[in-house]
Amino acid sequence: MTDLYSGVLEFYARQMPLMEEGRIEEYADTFTEDGVFEHALGWRLEGREQLIEGTRSGLARYAGKALRHWHDRFTVDRRPDGALDVTYLAMVSLVDEQGQVTFEPSCTVRDVLVWSEEGAGGGRWRTRSRFLRHDTSDMSRVWEGRLTGRT
Amino acid sequence: MTDLYSGVLEFYARQMPLMEEGRIEEYADTFTEDGVFEHALGWRLEGREQLIEGTRSGLARYAGKALRHWHDRFTVDRRPDGALDVTYLAMVSLVDEQGQVTFEPSCTVRDVLVWSEEGAGGGRWRTRSRFLRHDTSDMSRVWEGRLTGRT
Amino acid sequence: MTDLYSGVLEFYARQMPLMEEGRIEEYADTFTEDGVFEHALGWRLEGREQLIEGTRSGLARYAGKALRHWHDRFTVDRRPDGALDVTYLAMVSLVDEQGQVTFEPSCTVRDVLVWSEEGAGGGRWRTRSRFLRHDTSDMSRVWEGRLTGRT
Repeated sequence: MTDLYSGVLEFYARQMPLMEEGRIEEYADTFTEDGVFEHALGWRLEGREQLIEGTRSGLARYAGKALRHWHDRFTVDRRPDGALDVTYLAMVSLVDEQGQVTFEPSCTVRDVLVWSEEGAGGGRWRTRSRFLRHDTSDMSRVWEGRLTGRT
Repeated sequence: MTDLYSGVLEFYARQMPLMEEGRIEEYADTFTEDGVFEHALGWRLEGREQLIEGTRSGLARYAGKALRHWHDRFTVDRRPDGALDVTYLAMVSLVDEQGQVTFEPSCTVRDVLVWSEEGAGGGRWRTRSRFLRHDTSDMSRVWEGRLTGRT
Repeated sequence: MTDLYSGVLEFYARQMPLMEEGRIEEYADTFTEDGVFEHALGWRLEGREQLIEGTRSGLARYAGKALRHWHDRFTVDRRPDGALDVTYLAMVSLVDEQGQVTFEPSCTVRDVLVWSEEGAGGGRWRTRSRFLRHDTSDMSRVWEGRLTGRT
């Protein structure tokens, strides 16, 4: 488990279920204290308090559905200071109570991960910043559709 | 190819096509002799004979469709005895004769892999147990829908 | 980043966005000069000129949609001469202007990658051949459906 690339894949494998299962504080703890989550639409969450609030209200869109994040095509580049530039493709799947599967538009993500000794359990990667862009010009309309059940 | 994580990814890359292509005995051979396949719905297959029968009847649901298993978010933890705890996300895609694509609900899987010297070709990983939970409360209804063509 | 398997995953993570974003000459440059792209339907592109033309006309099918390639289940085997036999599962997702997501049939792909010192920037993997088979008997019908908006 010493390969850098594998370690990065496993970081996301552990980070994203925390969000999906509503363990929002544990999820926020996978970001640095000053971590930033930014969307190409213009909104920006900075620091764990905003991240927790923003994630909580984001999850409300999916009430009654099982939410999963799928990833592919990770690239990992180490900066001189040891931080990692990571890019990947992501897509959200939703399963409703009848077992019907739908997908949100694909998106591309750029993260910066830093090695952090903060907290218990020894060092580990944390997300210092995330920038996300969906492959559609109007993601807010997609989300509103979900909120009102029109999708 | 010495990285443990990569070796695990490749194990699934070789295991699952055997099932999809109906090479059921070869698929069963990727489990240990006493291997267990258990579903959160309550059913349980134990040993290769049950695994072969259960897989055969499971595949009958998909007659006329091309079945593929997609995976993501693998975590790999080595136990003191050398066995591996592996978790991942999975989803089945189906392509019908008109080229129409549908998906079964996402599921989470917990496997235990053990290194096995059994059989020809030197040591390799085998599945000792698999526990699968779909992200829907009533997967049997989804499967019945497929059987009767209602989905 | 020295693990062979990880290096192969990252190769595709960098190759496929070039095609999706219409950077066709850069995409063609990820193949060897005599690179071959062959489809089970019978068509065959050989060399960068054909690859560029064939990719350009292929992309025309997706005008107005965001195209993404998803991969899974990579196997990597090194040949005695150092070339790599790589197999994987792939699927194309499309997002239209309303944010609606559709998928093309899954396909299986067999590539041969070779280490190449050609061009600037030091050695890297390049695709010497790609053979692609969709999980449907009549992929041309699927593509025609897209072209005429019937899908």
